Amino acid sequence: MIPIVLHEVGLRDGLQMERQSAPFEHKVRWAESLMESGIDILQLGSFVHPEKIPQMADTDRLFSHFSASGRKPAGVLLSGLVLNEKGMERGYSCGVEMFCMGVSASETHSRKNTGMSTGEAMARIIPMAQEVLRSGKKVQVSVQSAFGCGFEGPIPLERVLSIVRRYLDGGLSNLSLADTAGHANPAQVKEMLDELFKLNSQIEWTGHFHNTYGLGLANCYAALESGLHTFETSSGGLGGCPFTKVAAGNVCTEDFVHSLQRTGERTDIDVKKLIAVAKDLSTFFGRDLPGLLYKTGPLGDTFRS
Amino acid sequence: MIPIVLHEVGLRDGLQMERQSAPFEHKVRWAESLMESGIDILQLGSFVHPEKIPQMADTDRLFSHFSASGRKPAGVLLSGLVLNEKGMERGYSCGVEMFCMGVSASETHSRKNTGMSTGEAMARIIPMAQEVLRSGKKVQVSVQSAFGCGFEGPIPLERVLSIVRRYLDGGLSNLSLADTAGHANPAQVKEMLDELFKLNSQIEWTGHFHNTYGLGLANCYAALESGLHTFETSSGGLGGCPFTKVAAGNVCTEDFVHSLQRTGERTDIDVKKLIAVAKDLSTFFGRDLPGLLYKTGPLGDTFRS
Repeated sequence: MIPIVLHEVGLRDGLQMERQSAPFEHKVRWAESLMESGIDILQLGSFVHPEKIPQMADTDRLFSHFSASGRKPAGVLLSGLVLNEKGMERGYSCGVEMFCMGVSASETHSRKNTGMSTGEAMARIIPMAQEVLRSGKKVQVSVQSAFGCGFEGPIPLERVLSIVRRYLDGGLSNLSLADTAGHANPAQVKEMLDELFKLNSQIEWTGHFHNTYGLGLANCYAALESGLHTFETSSGGLGGCPFTKVAAGNVCTEDFVHSLQRTGERTDIDVKKLIAVAKDLSTFFGRDLPGLLYKTGPLGDTFRS
Repeated sequence: MIPIVLHEVGLRDGLQMERQSAPFEHKVRWAESLMESGIDILQLGSFVHPEKIPQMADTDRLFSHFSASGRKPAGVLLSGLVLNEKGMERGYSCGVEMFCMGVSASETHSRKNTGMSTGEAMARIIPMAQEVLRSGKKVQVSVQSAFGCGFEGPIPLERVLSIVRRYLDGGLSNLSLADTAGHANPAQVKEMLDELFKLNSQIEWTGHFHNTYGLGLANCYAALESGLHTFETSSGGLGGCPFTKVAAGNVCTEDFVHSLQRTGERTDIDVKKLIAVAKDLSTFFGRDLPGLLYKTGPLGDTFRS
């Protein structure tokens, strides 16, 4: 059984969607609990201009804090999202261990998000990612809007394949597929992964699904069946799809972990610690989050099959 | 491609969980819209003592209303849940076309729900169902708590198999598996269906999943892959698991239909009509329902892949 890897992105993909910025001390507490729970990779934030996304203004400080000796459990990898060379420099300075960067498969989404076409964005991202590799750090490159776009609708599979081929040609094999708009469905996930695995069976694939239309966990299971084992999820399901106004964004970390544990997978993760974080986030933002487990409670230990 | 059959149970499994009883006229309007949408089977209510579940007190009147000539679109089947012989007599009198009845695979759940053991309940249900068959009406028999019980925890697969064998021995082959407590997970669904299909490949299987722990749609897809094609779902996701206090009950009809339509299935169903009912239910009960699509809106026609 290939172990399932969990990349928690709530402190980035979740918090950046909230109007209210969370104070540094809260982020530290949430990060500590998430790392203690036993997740594998923790995304602490993104390196964007603080005027653009003020919720992420303390990303450098968070990395510096956890890079200090003894403040991070062994085995947890700290990831950060970078959008450009400036962000990469900031990331190097404060101790990012895994750099995440990507392009959108949708031309419209790419232009709205970055002011560049997909091709222009790739020409910029690939040398950045290669430089990270040379520096000895980890790098993950992603395809956003891989399963459909809130502006353009369906994204041809061939467009995703051509981006992936360019990543592979550039020596980049840690790849993430993001369902930014939440359009993915299980059949499509399987079809895409089958095609992608044909390109290269050695790629490290990550899936990042949104629950906008209710299919988040169904898509995770479809991806698992197709041989993908790394997932980006968010505490409490925090976050959202930027194309719809509902708070039904990321796949919820603790719901997914609880479900995996029912079949004996990732029983090393402390789901109660994850639930505590989700409750704390819900209290902080003063509203219900999309996650279910922090409201229902886990099935009792005696109930686990 | 075997067509997927949709059995809408919100007016029974949803409304019976609500404190506030919906007036007859509202139920008629919701039932009309649901039938016009193109779903296949509509459950109008259950035949229980009105003092026990007052929300279902007008079930006979609803059936009589829609049994009158011209009030029901051709092709829609009206189902009703019956618990005992008295309910069956009421159902005959008012025009039930498909009788639903069942037992719980959990002894504790069975006793709490009916005051009888699973064996005693079976001894009562089977002759009732056989009588319905002789009368020329349709009958569906179910196994409740088939995937786990809120009181007992895991339910051994063998217990479900033994109930199913007794149904089959009694000549009953329209069977429903209900995940009453929401404990099912995709691997378990596949394992159980594989075993059940070995018993008899000609059985008409129905799946009834709850979204208590977020796996409702994932379990539907697992069931579909295993060859089950009929699903009981609820408008807006109305309803809940009687063992937890959260409103995250039934699989949401319009979310499921919208998802099926993405891959070209059941495109005959008018998802906008379904959304209108969910919105109306949400307005009537004055709160958000678990369904997502009535909040996000459907993907545009041009976006359908």
